[in-house]
Amino acid sequence: MASSYEPTDRTTLDRHPERAAYDRPTVHAILDEALIGHLGFADGDSPFVIPMLFARMGDTVYVHGSARSRVLRAAANGQPVCLTITLIDGLVMSRAVFSHSMNYRSVIILGRGREVTDAAEKIAALEATVEHVARGRWADARHPTEQELAATLVVALPLTEVSAKVRTGPPKDRDDDMDRVMWAGEIPLRMTAGPPVDDPALTELPEPVTPPAYAARYRRPGLDD
Amino acid sequence: MASSYEPTDRTTLDRHPERAAYDRPTVHAILDEALIGHLGFADGDSPFVIPMLFARMGDTVYVHGSARSRVLRAAANGQPVCLTITLIDGLVMSRAVFSHSMNYRSVIILGRGREVTDAAEKIAALEATVEHVARGRWADARHPTEQELAATLVVALPLTEVSAKVRTGPPKDRDDDMDRVMWAGEIPLRMTAGPPVDDPALTELPEPVTPPAYAARYRRPGLDD
Repeated sequence: MASSYEPTDRTTLDRHPERAAYDRPTVHAILDEALIGHLGFADGDSPFVIPMLFARMGDTVYVHGSARSRVLRAAANGQPVCLTITLIDGLVMSRAVFSHSMNYRSVIILGRGREVTDAAEKIAALEATVEHVARGRWADARHPTEQELAATLVVALPLTEVSAKVRTGPPKDRDDDMDRVMWAGEIPLRMTAGPPVDDPALTELPEPVTPPAYAARYRRPGLDD
Repeated sequence: MASSYEPTDRTTLDRHPERAAYDRPTVHAILDEALIGHLGFADGDSPFVIPMLFARMGDTVYVHGSARSRVLRAAANGQPVCLTITLIDGLVMSRAVFSHSMNYRSVIILGRGREVTDAAEKIAALEATVEHVARGRWADARHPTEQELAATLVVALPLTEVSAKVRTGPPKDRDDDMDRVMWAGEIPLRMTAGPPVDDPALTELPEPVTPPAYAARYRRPGLDD
């Protein structure tokens, strides 16, 4: 397997081509760090964009939801979709208003989905999603019944037409702005997990239950300590 | 002015109608807290979704970028667009895999954009955007030249067909799952700002420059202390 995705006309950047990346490690790291993506589809000429959990397995991304979800049904039916994933790393404060920017890492996936009907692939995709959110949770939680599986639509989206866009580093100002005596730099931003909040109903149980390690000290790639 | 936006067929939730909100305070608070939105437009039957900074002024949201940006030009030309804004508040760990969820607040804005050509409105929109990102920065930064303004496309999107979706609170499991002796609850997630990183080029200045208050101790609604 090639180590990079093939750029297409639609995934080639006209502006800031230096920010584009197509190599699998960069794309996969962004997908594995992000919790949600924004899935778009077109209803006639009207776009709809919906936030959605997802998970990656190899060169496939899986999204899921209610079998009654309009956007998911469109994706399952093979309508063109776009799944965009964005991580914000910092605010770039340049000297000129015009040069202000953000440091970020984003991935855009273009293509057509496929409804996952194979039972083993469906369960594997749901397990990957739960584990993507909180590694260790799948083993603890009650697994889906046949009825719950039937009510869940899982859509596979192949990573074929896909690109990453990454901005890092300090501001880039015009040369004639560089002698301005003013602060310029970056304000870093990170996601942080707080202490877990017990479901109040836990007090109804006959014995006390404490949060598992993955909740007591939540970890994921890129998460701040 | 009515205190709520009017629901339409497209902004009425089929599932979880209890999560829908149309009142201005809820919608505006989400828009004012979020840094970016995901803007979608349809190129024929192919959707494209791009992350974008934005700012709200009253009942209008402004996005901006290069005058060469394809998605912005489509929005400026009055093609239908969808701007979706999502804040993640926590991971909801229920007893059943099927009931796992997230606590989140999202806004979906549907409509058609309008290119901002009036000079005063254009500057006001850019100021609102800079201030939306870091309150106080507009006064410090070098303001746009005529040439920079001409290279910047600003698009106004009216808040008319708009809805919020909010999930809060503990897991909601089936009654017959409630006696399982296992942890359930929420893992709260927040955005956190780190200490500002100086542009290395600041050392070239004849005198030392320290970060202003809005960078040294970055604050925005909802940001964790």
